[in-house]
Amino acid sequence: MSERLTFTDRLIEAIREKKSLLAVGLDPQLQYMPRHLKEGAVARLGKSLDAVGSLFRRFNRAVIDAVEPFCIAVKPQIAFYEIYGLAGLRAFSDTIYYARKKGLVVITDAKRGDGGDTAIAYAQGHVGKIPFWGATPDELSEVESPIRADALTVHGYIGSACITPFVKAVLDHGTGIFVVDKTSFKPNSEVEQIEAASGRKVWEELALLVGRWGEGTEGRHGYRNVGVVLGATYPTDAPAMRQILPTSWFLVPGYGKQGGGADGAVAAANQDGLGIVVNSSRGITYAYREEQFKTDPENFAGAAAEAARFAQNDLNEALKRAGKFNF
Amino acid sequence: MSERLTFTDRLIEAIREKKSLLAVGLDPQLQYMPRHLKEGAVARLGKSLDAVGSLFRRFNRAVIDAVEPFCIAVKPQIAFYEIYGLAGLRAFSDTIYYARKKGLVVITDAKRGDGGDTAIAYAQGHVGKIPFWGATPDELSEVESPIRADALTVHGYIGSACITPFVKAVLDHGTGIFVVDKTSFKPNSEVEQIEAASGRKVWEELALLVGRWGEGTEGRHGYRNVGVVLGATYPTDAPAMRQILPTSWFLVPGYGKQGGGADGAVAAANQDGLGIVVNSSRGITYAYREEQFKTDPENFAGAAAEAARFAQNDLNEALKRAGKFNF
Repeated sequence: MSERLTFTDRLIEAIREKKSLLAVGLDPQLQYMPRHLKEGAVARLGKSLDAVGSLFRRFNRAVIDAVEPFCIAVKPQIAFYEIYGLAGLRAFSDTIYYARKKGLVVITDAKRGDGGDTAIAYAQGHVGKIPFWGATPDELSEVESPIRADALTVHGYIGSACITPFVKAVLDHGTGIFVVDKTSFKPNSEVEQIEAASGRKVWEELALLVGRWGEGTEGRHGYRNVGVVLGATYPTDAPAMRQILPTSWFLVPGYGKQGGGADGAVAAANQDGLGIVVNSSRGITYAYREEQFKTDPENFAGAAAEAARFAQNDLNEALKRAGKFNF
Repeated sequence: MSERLTFTDRLIEAIREKKSLLAVGLDPQLQYMPRHLKEGAVARLGKSLDAVGSLFRRFNRAVIDAVEPFCIAVKPQIAFYEIYGLAGLRAFSDTIYYARKKGLVVITDAKRGDGGDTAIAYAQGHVGKIPFWGATPDELSEVESPIRADALTVHGYIGSACITPFVKAVLDHGTGIFVVDKTSFKPNSEVEQIEAASGRKVWEELALLVGRWGEGTEGRHGYRNVGVVLGATYPTDAPAMRQILPTSWFLVPGYGKQGGGADGAVAAANQDGLGIVVNSSRGITYAYREEQFKTDPENFAGAAAEAARFAQNDLNEALKRAGKFNF
């Protein structure tokens, strides 16, 4: 076990302090932005890429301020930023910076996956340190990347050639990874569902591999820093996943707008109520557009706060029903 | 078949014009950069992130100028750029812009893979058009992203929920995707190698899915714009892949520094010599450091040109040995 406070330790301390398992997904999309923020961005910067970046930055900062009391982490999905180039990535970096300043754990949802030198580069950039200028032209130093997070989602398809450099970064830097294993989408992945000759599904075979890759990554509280993504929309798979990976942390997307209920979302929690972090994205950030929390667009942040408070309680009540609310 | 010139059509026309199957991978790494370029960047911009971006930009432009006569495409690996934040992404965008200006096809190696709205965003950004400001605050328009390429590598693990939006973008915009299927890394992926109950390996099952996903994406010359990544380092798998996907285009990495020979690299070519694009990265861009093409670092571009010319001929000779040099 690590002497340092690792990613899972920071999650556990935040869960105990805030009594919440909630992560808020920050996936800004132009079509869902409040009109007054759009008009403000265009007034400042014209109809430019920079105006999109500025809009996303302001929207995210307001959401973070609103939801911070009710959640332990944020999960920015990098896709929605990187497609706007530099302007988008600037908003992404700012979001990481601002969320960490507010004491939130940052899980970057980038689902990176490659091998060799490329896997090393991804691991360095997202959850480690990147090569940088050294004292002389022939030397290198190390610094944190502007996109460095506390944990990252990764693809496991490429196997050890991909995961080994990430595990090294996790061990060296006290960060974490979640291997995409059983996703929340409908239709559910045809690849995850392939039946192996072993009688298991491919996602179960991958979970067994994650079990090997994660050995020795336990933090101070005994939870591993190499975990999996396990969608909330297929909760009957949760006990099997937990049996394969008893001390791994699970990132559970699909709660809320994607249709997963709270009972399903917490199905994989351990008896101590730990081992999972549950993500909701659009159901919280765009709550002002939803029946349940509908408000004027000007009050989008208030609606996000209400939706986050609701989700926090919803998940805790589900934990209580399962007899697992122990923090 | 498409009336338009699609991604595979542009590849075929370039192959016939240049008599080359070569793509050059642009994966800039600080430790391999020529000393004089490093010193110049630091002199201009200090030991900053911007200096790294400027260095990569200049290096890539010089490499593109040098290798352009001998290759049909470049394949920038986004990992090496994105980890340097805005400065890195600026170099990445510039590299795409410059390569396209030089008439080269651009294949972004980003191995993106997600579902739902996120898959739509990735598809829009990398091989389609992104939502942008419209005439009024409530309307949207579409523009090309600063990171838009001709084709993108994607992960297939999430299945149809991921690939369907990409196929739509491919059809709408005449672009292409390569699904990561059989990679070149050693150790080779434990996931790709899982034996399915069908008796096939998981990579073969995935190839069958790619066959379904790619239906109707044929370009004017009859080749599909939804293909696969097939590593050059395991050439015995090439005939099986070609049998499953007779008219799909294959991106073949692993030739050169990763250890794949030319005969293995062209093993998956069809009888017309088409259907593959073969990538070499470090063996060309850092040829000045290699025994075979060693020069002063100041002449790195000349060494890259020599290495690219060698690779072009090496692959064509292998095609001739296989009786497939027909362009």
